[in-house]
Amino acid sequence: MREQTLKAFGQEVRHWRIEQHLSQEELASRCGFHRTYIGQIERGERNPSLLNILTLCRTLGVSLPKFFTRYESAIDTPI
Amino acid sequence: MREQTLKAFGQEVRHWRIEQHLSQEELASRCGFHRTYIGQIERGERNPSLLNILTLCRTLGVSLPKFFTRYESAIDTPI
Repeated sequence: MREQTLKAFGQEVRHWRIEQHLSQEELASRCGFHRTYIGQIERGERNPSLLNILTLCRTLGVSLPKFFTRYESAIDTPI
Repeated sequence: MREQTLKAFGQEVRHWRIEQHLSQEELASRCGFHRTYIGQIERGERNPSLLNILTLCRTLGVSLPKFFTRYESAIDTPI
């Protein structure tokens, strides 16, 4: 469950990043994160903190309810 | 911003916990967390991870969009 849940989160970040036409490096820079952090998030290798989730959503221009509506659908659907 | 954001998160956890008529210890036990962890969360002393946020919401019986709709209203309102 843990791995799938983190991977689904990473896929959502990737979805919104691509919609904003940002590279991983650009998103990392705008968030003030290390340049490798976004790649790790998108591969599901990180379990991000609340504050980092808020920074990601704000930088990606997506509200928390909108982000978590899509995310919840993703994790409720068995892969 | 950091402190206020974490405190607002704690207030939301407290709101849903009380609605479920659970003590901090009961919620901690159902989540598999240390018994002091919920108190720390509710006081805004912790920056919880995604996986712990999911565990909290599921145990409290609140969907992620519902939780984050209330939470976003709380952090968008200056205290």
